[in-house]
Amino acid sequence: MALNDAESPLLGSHAGKLAWQLRPTFASSLAAILVAVIATYAVITELAYEDGHVSHYWGFLVHVTIMVYVGFGFLMTFLRKYSLSAVGLNFLLSAVVTLLAVLCVGAMQQGLVFGEKASITIDLPLLIDATFAAGSAMISFGAVLGRGTPAQLLWMLVLMVPLYAVNQYIVFEHFKALDIGGSMSIHAFGAYYGLAASLWVGLAPGGGAGHPKNGAMPSSDVTAMVGTLFLWMLWPSFNGALGATPGGTDIWQWHCIANTVLSLTASCVAAFAASAFFTNKLDMVHIQNATLAGGVAIGSSASLRLPPAAALLVGTAAGVLSVVGYVKGSPALEGSGLALRDTCGVHNLHGLPGVLGGLASALFSAIPHIASANAALLVRGDSQWMWQLAGLGTTVGLALAGGTAAGWLVSSVNVLGQELPAEMYYDDEVFWAEGKEEEEAE
Amino acid sequence: MALNDAESPLLGSHAGKLAWQLRPTFASSLAAILVAVIATYAVITELAYEDGHVSHYWGFLVHVTIMVYVGFGFLMTFLRKYSLSAVGLNFLLSAVVTLLAVLCVGAMQQGLVFGEKASITIDLPLLIDATFAAGSAMISFGAVLGRGTPAQLLWMLVLMVPLYAVNQYIVFEHFKALDIGGSMSIHAFGAYYGLAASLWVGLAPGGGAGHPKNGAMPSSDVTAMVGTLFLWMLWPSFNGALGATPGGTDIWQWHCIANTVLSLTASCVAAFAASAFFTNKLDMVHIQNATLAGGVAIGSSASLRLPPAAALLVGTAAGVLSVVGYVKGSPALEGSGLALRDTCGVHNLHGLPGVLGGLASALFSAIPHIASANAALLVRGDSQWMWQLAGLGTTVGLALAGGTAAGWLVSSVNVLGQELPAEMYYDDEVFWAEGKEEEEAE
Amino acid sequence: MALNDAESPLLGSHAGKLAWQLRPTFASSLAAILVAVIATYAVITELAYEDGHVSHYWGFLVHVTIMVYVGFGFLMTFLRKYSLSAVGLNFLLSAVVTLLAVLCVGAMQQGLVFGEKASITIDLPLLIDATFAAGSAMISFGAVLGRGTPAQLLWMLVLMVPLYAVNQYIVFEHFKALDIGGSMSIHAFGAYYGLAASLWVGLAPGGGAGHPKNGAMPSSDVTAMVGTLFLWMLWPSFNGALGATPGGTDIWQWHCIANTVLSLTASCVAAFAASAFFTNKLDMVHIQNATLAGGVAIGSSASLRLPPAAALLVGTAAGVLSVVGYVKGSPALEGSGLALRDTCGVHNLHGLPGVLGGLASALFSAIPHIASANAALLVRGDSQWMWQLAGLGTTVGLALAGGTAAGWLVSSVNVLGQELPAEMYYDDEVFWAEGKEEEEAE
Repeated sequence: MALNDAESPLLGSHAGKLAWQLRPTFASSLAAILVAVIATYAVITELAYEDGHVSHYWGFLVHVTIMVYVGFGFLMTFLRKYSLSAVGLNFLLSAVVTLLAVLCVGAMQQGLVFGEKASITIDLPLLIDATFAAGSAMISFGAVLGRGTPAQLLWMLVLMVPLYAVNQYIVFEHFKALDIGGSMSIHAFGAYYGLAASLWVGLAPGGGAGHPKNGAMPSSDVTAMVGTLFLWMLWPSFNGALGATPGGTDIWQWHCIANTVLSLTASCVAAFAASAFFTNKLDMVHIQNATLAGGVAIGSSASLRLPPAAALLVGTAAGVLSVVGYVKGSPALEGSGLALRDTCGVHNLHGLPGVLGGLASALFSAIPHIASANAALLVRGDSQWMWQLAGLGTTVGLALAGGTAAGWLVSSVNVLGQELPAEMYYDDEVFWAEGKEEEEAE
Repeated sequence: MALNDAESPLLGSHAGKLAWQLRPTFASSLAAILVAVIATYAVITELAYEDGHVSHYWGFLVHVTIMVYVGFGFLMTFLRKYSLSAVGLNFLLSAVVTLLAVLCVGAMQQGLVFGEKASITIDLPLLIDATFAAGSAMISFGAVLGRGTPAQLLWMLVLMVPLYAVNQYIVFEHFKALDIGGSMSIHAFGAYYGLAASLWVGLAPGGGAGHPKNGAMPSSDVTAMVGTLFLWMLWPSFNGALGATPGGTDIWQWHCIANTVLSLTASCVAAFAASAFFTNKLDMVHIQNATLAGGVAIGSSASLRLPPAAALLVGTAAGVLSVVGYVKGSPALEGSGLALRDTCGVHNLHGLPGVLGGLASALFSAIPHIASANAALLVRGDSQWMWQLAGLGTTVGLALAGGTAAGWLVSSVNVLGQELPAEMYYDDEVFWAEGKEEEEAE
Repeated sequence: MALNDAESPLLGSHAGKLAWQLRPTFASSLAAILVAVIATYAVITELAYEDGHVSHYWGFLVHVTIMVYVGFGFLMTFLRKYSLSAVGLNFLLSAVVTLLAVLCVGAMQQGLVFGEKASITIDLPLLIDATFAAGSAMISFGAVLGRGTPAQLLWMLVLMVPLYAVNQYIVFEHFKALDIGGSMSIHAFGAYYGLAASLWVGLAPGGGAGHPKNGAMPSSDVTAMVGTLFLWMLWPSFNGALGATPGGTDIWQWHCIANTVLSLTASCVAAFAASAFFTNKLDMVHIQNATLAGGVAIGSSASLRLPPAAALLVGTAAGVLSVVGYVKGSPALEGSGLALRDTCGVHNLHGLPGVLGGLASALFSAIPHIASANAALLVRGDSQWMWQLAGLGTTVGLALAGGTAAGWLVSSVNVLGQELPAEMYYDDEVFWAEGKEEEEAE
């Protein structure tokens, strides 16, 4: 432990200096964003009302909200010294993104940007879509977890929201691609945006996988399992939240739930098997993450009527692929010329399984037996599989471009020298009033 | 750490003596209450049945229950040595209050106390109201957390239930005040009852904010965030649980949900901004609590059709007010002649935002544009705002009077010398069989 | 602490050797099971679809899933060094059992084993039943927690599923017994299966109640309360999940909810009172478990229209019985000739209260006043009480026989010497890549 206070006399003063900067950078950014949000809501939003929406949608929105705030929030508490930041910043940044996404996603979906409508009407489906955007942003957040200042992370994700809304519009409205659970538009988008930004943010030498605080301890691994389990249990609601309209049929919503339950259950078993196979022990990193890959990978195809064994196969493949990503892929990417850092391994949980999900949806669209059983959903008919691939490619391309731009921006606009040195990575003490003193008092 | 066992040889014997007293005071109180409850239920209760209630209400009751038992229970685990008591006593006392509130609230609402009816019919809305009462009691509990014996805390809250039921009856049935989310009747009532009791319970010198165990550590701060997040996510259900009847319109319930989502999201952002502004770091006390103030403050007005920006403004004001309360208010009140101790800062999370919520409901009722859009809800017409203020004043007055009486009683009826010395405050070891020995075994 | 690494030089090599064995035993078992499951699903399952099932059942399935994965999973994290295994293996084994139970329970319920039908149709009620089976299996798991290898635990529970399905078929289809919440077919079955297996698995000397790692610490007690509270709050959904059909009356489902709320609330208060009475302090073991006994004990009778006081009495009796079981029963059984080890005390939470629940259902069926008010449910009329007793006896008998057979098998088929020595009991380090090293790095 070469980086603790006793041995690194500069840490105290660095920490003091950075803490001092939370007011001019972080607090003022938040205040400005909040004022702008309130003013914009005052001018261009109003509440919608349609009878029956509460009983139809509210339970699903609660499930999605639990996934984003408790699921992602606690999943990221695995770092032994960064739990307060993980769960705290996940909370704040999700709230900020949700407020902005109501405006951006609403403006795209309801045609404001094309002058078709003067104001955004807020209803429960829009709140669900806005919370999906927050989920996508939290995936990006996971790639740079522990290596940016709060102000950097805030602006990196604020900049993401308009692009997320545009990509979603292209995939659904223009391409008419299948992606009800967001394998592409939520998971792959968030993962590749965050990974591209990670090539610019938090690059100090010694701040990667070998950093002494970049790891778990048993108690933080247990709290991270709170996140894993709530994500796993509620994922069928995530994939199916918008699978039915009030008064309409619920057959596609049922498919979403059944396919996701089967895929997730298989990915849980497959992840345990693969973890034990590759490491000869069980590894909490795999259990916390790869068990969930089935939920990501079935997302684009979730509304289809599939043979149950097909959903099990997708989940099995995703679970194994995700473990292989952690065992082989992440070290290779960090060791390569890219020197890619990915704190939570979002490439293994959201990137690769998201791509797998996009490919699986193209494959299922191209299998005649399955396509004919789902003709009502395949708006593009025989060419649906090409539009699935177009959706995947567009999503990955826009995410990489946007993440690069945002990462470059928040690392270049270096207000008050806010770039962190490596010894302040993965450490709550830098930004939180709690910590050291209280533990010493024990 | 002058108060640990090694340096304070008397602690062991004190602890032994008090532990010995759990049987004659606490266990016997619980047994007597349970026998009385069962006998009363046998005589004057029966199950109601109305078709459709389960699908309409059960999901909301679950959400409210999660808020009271997990939300408040884990929010109070922030103390570094008092987590078992916090979550354990929150569990027990909520159950006791719920059983009693079915009787007291049911008797008032259904007219038993006026001889209009011979028995209480138990249905899901009554169970929701009884769980609301438990929530209000847990707010009171938070004011004295760590500074009373289990028997004192039990009787302090048992005595609260009839007064809670009377106040609720006055506010809703007599005044016809708007208060669907209980800014006044649940939050302000619970806060001021607890704060008044706190002037009588747990006054030993050295037992306040400077007590060495009256603080958090990072791991207890993380478990407290479980409470914060479940409260935050489910608060729209709390404010909207009784906002619609089966078969009736859900427009007011939708308003409750939308207004609460917006207010809470704004109070989250505002609380982070204010915490960073006032302290230049982030402070977990603010994040755990002030982020929730928007849910409290929008409670009285939640069913109204409001412009979305109005809900955002209420949440922003509540979040900032709550942080200011923690930074400036609490130290001032504890340092003043009152010497007010408030372990969880319930004045900042429930008291001030509850008053703000009552005032906001009066203001909205007095704004012609808003009043005319909500004429169906404003039973008192143009004078509705006065009845809102009457509800607020009555609630605060009754709560202060009742809390004073209960606090005086449980501190005066000092069975077997059960008053705790300050070195036993905020410490699980005094009442729990776990703890010391097991940690030493590590 | 005679069993730590420094003093036991053999532990390192043992642990290494066993870890090495996770690939040939555990990983290969999982892979084989998963392949067999996928192949079987491919041949004999298909998705059902009935309109309205999602809104009717999905919320209940989520609640039951939370109980099994978070409830049981976190309840078992109380051991100070075994939290990763507890929550991790609970996750995996529940997923495996659910996949198998869809096949086994589905085959029995839908008549495949009698040749009446060629394939199993998967719908939400079947997924709920399969998750119930996982809950029953996790009860068995609790009896041997910490004392078996992952492969032993896996096969012990895989072998349970067909027998569980047969017993459920006998109790419901043949006997027409009342058991909607599974006091008998879920709780007693799981408990006695696990206890019988516990007579064969994990018998190394010194591995019982006195083992230095077989106990809690305050932080693990707090995480265990996450489990307790979610179990407690959602238990009414468990008992009522299958209490109504879409479009049918919800009166029996309402009874399930009301009776369970009342019974659980009483068992919470009774458990606290009994814990304080017997120990003069509060004991977390009792609070974590005995507070839940009311949910177990009301299970068989939950759908009946009962006087509210009757439900309170069942809960009170269950809470006291469970505490007495922990205080007196468990030490007596472990000290007796049986030398019965029961890590989580499942006999006290599921065994005894399950038997009490079966007996209570027989008693209620035999009370003319109650029987006549519930004639529609008592298919066997005046002899219903005998069929309740027959259901209880059959369940306990089959569970004991099956658990004995499975326990004998997994302890006899000792692949690669996989029997654990006592110093490796209750210890995550043996099977997990986390732990020691990281804590030392602190």
